Amino acid sequence: MVSGAAPSSPLVSIDRVRAARAVADEVGVDVVVVTPGSDLRYLCGYDAHAMERLTALAVPRRGEPLLVVPRLEAPMVEASPAGALGLEVLAWDETDDPFARLADALTARLGSAPQRVAVGNRTWAEHALGIQRALPGSTLELAAPVVDRLRMVKTPAEVEELALAGAAIDRVHARMGEWLRVGRTEAEVGADIAAAILAEGHVGVDFTIVGSGPNGASPHHELSDRVVAAGDLVVVDIGGETATGYRSDCTRTYVVGGSADAETAEWYAVLQRAQEAATAAVRPGVTCEQIDAVAREVITEAGWGEQFIHRTGHGIGLDTHEAPYVVAGNDLPLEPGMAFSVEPGIYLAGRCGARIEDIVVCTDDGVRTLNEGPRELVELPG
Amino acid sequence: MVSGAAPSSPLVSIDRVRAARAVADEVGVDVVVVTPGSDLRYLCGYDAHAMERLTALAVPRRGEPLLVVPRLEAPMVEASPAGALGLEVLAWDETDDPFARLADALTARLGSAPQRVAVGNRTWAEHALGIQRALPGSTLELAAPVVDRLRMVKTPAEVEELALAGAAIDRVHARMGEWLRVGRTEAEVGADIAAAILAEGHVGVDFTIVGSGPNGASPHHELSDRVVAAGDLVVVDIGGETATGYRSDCTRTYVVGGSADAETAEWYAVLQRAQEAATAAVRPGVTCEQIDAVAREVITEAGWGEQFIHRTGHGIGLDTHEAPYVVAGNDLPLEPGMAFSVEPGIYLAGRCGARIEDIVVCTDDGVRTLNEGPRELVELPG
Repeated sequence: MVSGAAPSSPLVSIDRVRAARAVADEVGVDVVVVTPGSDLRYLCGYDAHAMERLTALAVPRRGEPLLVVPRLEAPMVEASPAGALGLEVLAWDETDDPFARLADALTARLGSAPQRVAVGNRTWAEHALGIQRALPGSTLELAAPVVDRLRMVKTPAEVEELALAGAAIDRVHARMGEWLRVGRTEAEVGADIAAAILAEGHVGVDFTIVGSGPNGASPHHELSDRVVAAGDLVVVDIGGETATGYRSDCTRTYVVGGSADAETAEWYAVLQRAQEAATAAVRPGVTCEQIDAVAREVITEAGWGEQFIHRTGHGIGLDTHEAPYVVAGNDLPLEPGMAFSVEPGIYLAGRCGARIEDIVVCTDDGVRTLNEGPRELVELPG
Repeated sequence: MVSGAAPSSPLVSIDRVRAARAVADEVGVDVVVVTPGSDLRYLCGYDAHAMERLTALAVPRRGEPLLVVPRLEAPMVEASPAGALGLEVLAWDETDDPFARLADALTARLGSAPQRVAVGNRTWAEHALGIQRALPGSTLELAAPVVDRLRMVKTPAEVEELALAGAAIDRVHARMGEWLRVGRTEAEVGADIAAAILAEGHVGVDFTIVGSGPNGASPHHELSDRVVAAGDLVVVDIGGETATGYRSDCTRTYVVGGSADAETAEWYAVLQRAQEAATAAVRPGVTCEQIDAVAREVITEAGWGEQFIHRTGHGIGLDTHEAPYVVAGNDLPLEPGMAFSVEPGIYLAGRCGARIEDIVVCTDDGVRTLNEGPRELVELPG
């Protein structure tokens, strides 16, 4: 996908940078440095390519933020939403040491060299260690406590972007019968799904999982040359990126050219009850691990706990997987605006699998589901 | 692009892991840890998604290498070329601490906790710092001195993969007249080019730069809604990924619906002489900065040095940009098998730009060029 072609986001404002500075100051971090990826796009709207040349937004706890860019890409910053934020741009030349220039600029702003340097969780090691090398007295830590704290709680405008993404991927699932047929390979079906993801309102395809028959027992199996057979259970987990960078992610399980046998229908019903119960449990103050436990309890009590081999969900926004993670051990309480997947699954090694996934948002008093469409095992004609 | 759909690479063998272990031991690194991306794909053939869950190949200087993967993705490892290498797989569960498990496994292999831990240059900070947290006595460094030293020098089989990629992108440039016409937007032209990149033998589109008129003066400008006008100079820099993961990257500059004026023809001729001279200078023992200097000298002597605002080139292989970098300050001597771009450019801010880029390989006694097609300013009918 051509990131340079992404339309500007109406969602970005300098307020996000100011909020990051306030949180950095509150947690005692001297500077937050984020590089190309969703952290950078979230904070300043610059959807830059990840490259060996350093591009970074540095937000010191005091003083003005700074956008470090290779000089040859300075025109791209101006053309991006970041160009409207009035950020100081430090353009470095091919033979400069951008880390040294960033270190000098930060030391000048703070009055002394920063000690606690928080780098984006997905910042490349060569950039993180380059910054540390230029600030010998500093210690590196992760920026998540600052940036995820902001990104995790979606504004109403961001929720609407996720709702648009959810409606777009729902339209793709609604057309599944056009492509998912007996005799076609997973790869053929996946290619048609990918085209539909673009046709139905995304600018990029993130993933197309078509797990037919035994392949459905591998949760992250994507596509293979396996031919779909009559009576196959098929896990279809698909998602893409919309023009503003927000993601869709929805799983439905289909049975093609036949019907589920009684045993399958029985455990699928358990899975559906688990997904419904976990969704219904979402409200402010409930912890992420409690949501996971609700789904796991339903499945475990029915005797399928060993076959539910992954966490219940993950946050979603500008990344398909981001905080908060709905997993045992995460005692983070849900807040209104947190958006995440609820996607329990049951996997029978060597035979088949099933998963039901919706994106949901915690509201002031409960939950809003951003995916519709039947959650039952959908029978498609062969 | 669906990485899981990438065919297995016939190029990968356990020898690469053994070579990495030998170099790590030679440079005194206790363990090399690489995560999803080209380092991992190069060393073991596993083309994994970059995810928050830790997937890593750890190569200790002594003892067997170890592939750390989330249990739910273990089947994907087996289905990848890595499954044939006989690597020990450490599959971790959703509630495990994968960093602690990796640290324990490495300490057992080495007889004591590793001190010098080299992480992939593009490993995410959250993974690099997670490893360091689990090995409190360790210091992090970059894996480039081990991994790039191997990746930088292509085997004959890898060179043939790059040659196939080069021929595929040359076929796209040869068809440019079908799409690049007066009255069409850069975005429209780019969409057609992207489709052709796939049609002509790639599995993914990496970038489509169509810099028309003044946009050509921004070297990394990609696509916009600017309408191509008669007489525009248009910089077209395009590349993609082939089934085995090797990349194409080729730039040609076109003039659409007209001819270049005398001044443009004069400085373009300078650019072409510079690109030819730098290519001709490639042979074993010549340094990267010497190649850059050859191109820069031709352009500077003609008075356009200030308009050549970037380095002369970059290495290419499983990444579009990788070592070696052809830039002032890099005194690395070329070796047979090193593959890189030679792409000088001249950029006139606010007016237009031009760049000529070929991928070349250093041979035993000189250079092999992997892109053909006219390097002159190609006139296309309006």
